[in-house]
Parts: sequence; C-alpha cells; structure tokens
Amino acid sequence: MTRVLVLHSVSLLRSALAALLTKEGAFDVSACGWGTAARLSQTLRPDVCVVDLDCPGATALLEGDTEGAVSTGTTDITGTTGPTGPILTPRMALLVLASAGRPGALRRAFEARALGYVDKNGSTHRLVRAIRKVAEGERFIDESLAFGFLEAARMPLTQRELSVLSRAAEGESIAEIARGLHLSNGTVRNYMASATRKVGARNRIDAIRISQGAGWV
Amino acid sequence: MTRVLVLHSVSLLRSALAALLTKEGAFDVSACGWGTAARLSQTLRPDVCVVDLDCPGATALLEGDTEGAVSTGTTDITGTTGPTGPILTPRMALLVLASAGRPGALRRAFEARALGYVDKNGSTHRLVRAIRKVAEGERFIDESLAFGFLEAARMPLTQRELSVLSRAAEGESIAEIARGLHLSNGTVRNYMASATRKVGARNRIDAIRISQGAGWV
Repeated sequence: MTRVLVLHSVSLLRSALAALLTKEGAFDVSACGWGTAARLSQTLRPDVCVVDLDCPGATALLEGDTEGAVSTGTTDITGTTGPTGPILTPRMALLVLASAGRPGALRRAFEARALGYVDKNGSTHRLVRAIRKVAEGERFIDESLAFGFLEAARMPLTQRELSVLSRAAEGESIAEIARGLHLSNGTVRNYMASATRKVGARNRIDAIRISQGAGWV
Repeated sequence: MTRVLVLHSVSLLRSALAALLTKEGAFDVSACGWGTAARLSQTLRPDVCVVDLDCPGATALLEGDTEGAVSTGTTDITGTTGPTGPILTPRMALLVLASAGRPGALRRAFEARALGYVDKNGSTHRLVRAIRKVAEGERFIDESLAFGFLEAARMPLTQRELSVLSRAAEGESIAEIARGLHLSNGTVRNYMASATRKVGARNRIDAIRISQGAGWV
C-alpha cells in the first residue's frame, strides 16, 4: 500500500485532502503541517509527499530554507530540513499541487526535483493517478500546467532584481533596501525600474503585484 | 439529513472538503465553484452553505457583487446572485471558513449575515459541530477568531481610503486613481498618506501589504 504524506499549512484543508485520498485512492495517508513534518516523515517513511505550492511554507520547504519553521535540525543531502531533521528524503517522491499562472512556484518545485505536478483545479482522479505514477518513480505533469513551465523557463528577472522587489514587497523603503543589500540608493532605483519594465508593469506597486501573482517573489 | 453545499474556487480542495464532511459528519454534501453555485443551490436547497473566506470569489459572493462570475441573473432579497440567479437564499445558513488575523474578511462575512465562523486551523470535529449548530439556526464562532472580531469592529480606514488603496493595489497611478474616483491628485495623495499612517505602515507599498493581509482590501 502506497504511503502518502500530505503537507499543508491549514489544518482543515490537510485533513480534507487526507480524507479525499483515503476515500478515492485507498492510500495509507497521513497529514501534517510544517512543524511536525520532519518527525512524521522520518517515522512513517512515506513513498510520496504531497505539498500544496500555494502554502506560505512551501517555498521555504522547497528551497531548504527552514528559518520560518524554527530549524534546529541538520541538513541532509536534499538540503531541506525541519525542526528535528530532514523533511524530504531522497527516497520519497515529491508531488506538488499547483495553480496555473504561477510559473515562479513551478520553477521552485522543479528546482527541488519534484516528480509530480498536479493542477489544483483538476480532478481527484488525476491526483490519484499522479500519486500512483510518482510512487513508481515516474514523472507526472498536468497538461494545464505545461504553459506555466514554458513561462518559468524564461523568468524575466535577475537575482538582484528579485531581491530588491521582495524587500520592497515587505514594505522596505529604497534606503532600507540599499542598506540591506549594500547598494547605493540609485542602484536600487535602477533595479526597481528595470524589474518594473521587464514584467510589463506600470509602476513599482504594479511590478510587485504582477511578480507576486506569478510566484516570482 | 443535513444538506451541505461547499463553495470553493479550487476544485481539488472543494472535493477534499466534501470528502471530509461526508466521512466525518454523515451530511449530504455537494461541492461546486462560483460558476455553478446558483444553479446547484436552487436545485439542492442546501441547509448550510460552507464558504472558504480566503477564496478570491468569496468577497464578491458576500458583497453581492457577482461581476466576476459573469452575472446575468436577477438579484434576490439577499442581494447575492450568480450567473443564473441567487446563490445565498434566506433559508440557507451561511458558514464561513476563516483564517485568524484577517479581520476584514470576518467583517464582510458578518455583514453578509453569516451564522457560523470556523477557524481553518481548527479541528474537523469543530467544523462538524458548527455545521450542526447553524443548520438549527444557532450561531457558532470559534474562540480563536474572537480577537479578529474585535479588530474588525474598529476598522481604521474610511471608505474613500479603502477605495484609493484598492486601486493602488491593482497598480493604478495617483493620476489614474484621481480620474477614476473624480478626485484631484492632491486629494488622492492625502488619502494615501492618511491610510498609510492609520494602518501603521512605513510607506504606500507597506500600507497595501498590511491592508491586504488583514483582508481590508
């Protein structure tokens, strides 16, 4: 029986996903949030880990940055750790639930070597099939997400522009961003201007809105 | 048997919530998105309608603004219509799934006369109990949301400040906002400044971030 671990930051939704998978797929399903994910993944040794990409914690999980989860553990080969050790292990297949139109999130999942990419607006049947496939080590990508991959491949922003935009999105002023990144105010303004132009935005606020919508920042 | 209609914009999550409620509560559960909500609510005549407040469509539903749902229907007594008529009917109890820390969303649910307020980070058991209570016409409010209600009662922004912030959040410039609201540029700047001060923000982008987080805009 395939063991599935559902990771979601909202408890009612992870219980709901677990109920769905138990009912429709006859999997052995557990569900938890980021806080207990490491412990549970080590105890249960799941075959497949299902992660909702739109959860705030998903980005940190995929990037191996567990600051938000009060990391005290060690870093394993995948570079992703939780409070008591690694969450994702090399033997576990990663399957992400993604929304179309968020290429930035897909890109991060791809970089974290996710094997399955399932559209959250697809059918339960597809999700069950995807879990079975990735459990066997095969890749699964929903057609509706394919365009997002294409967009993800041509991410328009440089790392510097992303850093500047992310800090601006958190409410930092030009001067604060400049201090934080050891740049001059003028350079920060230049990065903001180039990022705004590249994403086709009308102004800084619009650039942040567009970039957040796409999942770049 | 209590008839429950689950409204969620993401199909996998609404299927999941339906599976959870069928399993744990022995309710007669249906689930749909905004597009078919009106038709289904008229056909099924559910006792309780469960809506996730964090869905993009929830705000429009609660405010009776169904522009986003390509409204062609008529407005009923509750003022909320879908493509083929009303979604919420006076005989149906409204239960919302809410996140703590989003008083603006709670406020809109309260104004739409929701009877049940369930914390999305609570237990399935609480949700089942809440559905049973509101089906009997009783109010249900999760304790963890109580502080949100307190904050919702003292919403800091005026309607004008909210309008200006919402338009700025969509990427409109000062001049565009001024034209759209028939105000002078200076007046728009004043509203932006007062809104920024009132929510304790450092600048305009910070004001938008804070207001969106709280669910005000």
